[in-house]
Amino acid sequence: MSDKTVTLINVFTVKPERQQELVELLTKATEESVRHAPGFMSARLHRSLDGTKVTMYAQWRSNEDYQAMRKDPAPLPCLTKALEIATFEPGMYEVAQSLSPSGTDA
Amino acid sequence: MSDKTVTLINVFTVKPERQQELVELLTKATEESVRHAPGFMSARLHRSLDGTKVTMYAQWRSNEDYQAMRKDPAPLPCLTKALEIATFEPGMYEVAQSLSPSGTDA
Repeated sequence: MSDKTVTLINVFTVKPERQQELVELLTKATEESVRHAPGFMSARLHRSLDGTKVTMYAQWRSNEDYQAMRKDPAPLPCLTKALEIATFEPGMYEVAQSLSPSGTDA
Repeated sequence: MSDKTVTLINVFTVKPERQQELVELLTKATEESVRHAPGFMSARLHRSLDGTKVTMYAQWRSNEDYQAMRKDPAPLPCLTKALEIATFEPGMYEVAQSLSPSGTDA
């Protein structure tokens, strides 16, 4: 991973009865537009076991690539709907440490 | 990844001047004890570019393995110090979607 790689970790808070709908909206936005953008490396969408959160973990080649994607209006309809049923806390990160298991049992 | 795999995404909020100290405490707790626990699969520690957050992303073979590790007192001194300088919001998840780039430019 190059020094410029950025990791987006966006935590959405939602009512449990709308968690599945939120997963579907964020999947659709990513499938149909975000993942086609230059510099998109990977994304993983997570549903919390307690039903109250959905978290997107995504890696981009650079902040510039990510900002360029954000100017694309294509994912906005899904994202607007997502923010009607959820609040979110965005975060942009660099990886500080990667830690592996020790031994063979892990 | 099996159906039982769990992903922990823990978001710590910290003053920027203590972000590095927090990264070091969480690294030490993971290096010295957590990663030796049965069922630990991987962890990645992230520092936010704005200085205000540190987020741990970790995968465990099962919730049972994770809960067993939590009974180990070894990481507690580091984690206690971490919580003196930060607040945190824990989250336990399953992966809902993994999304890859399309085309060759991404």
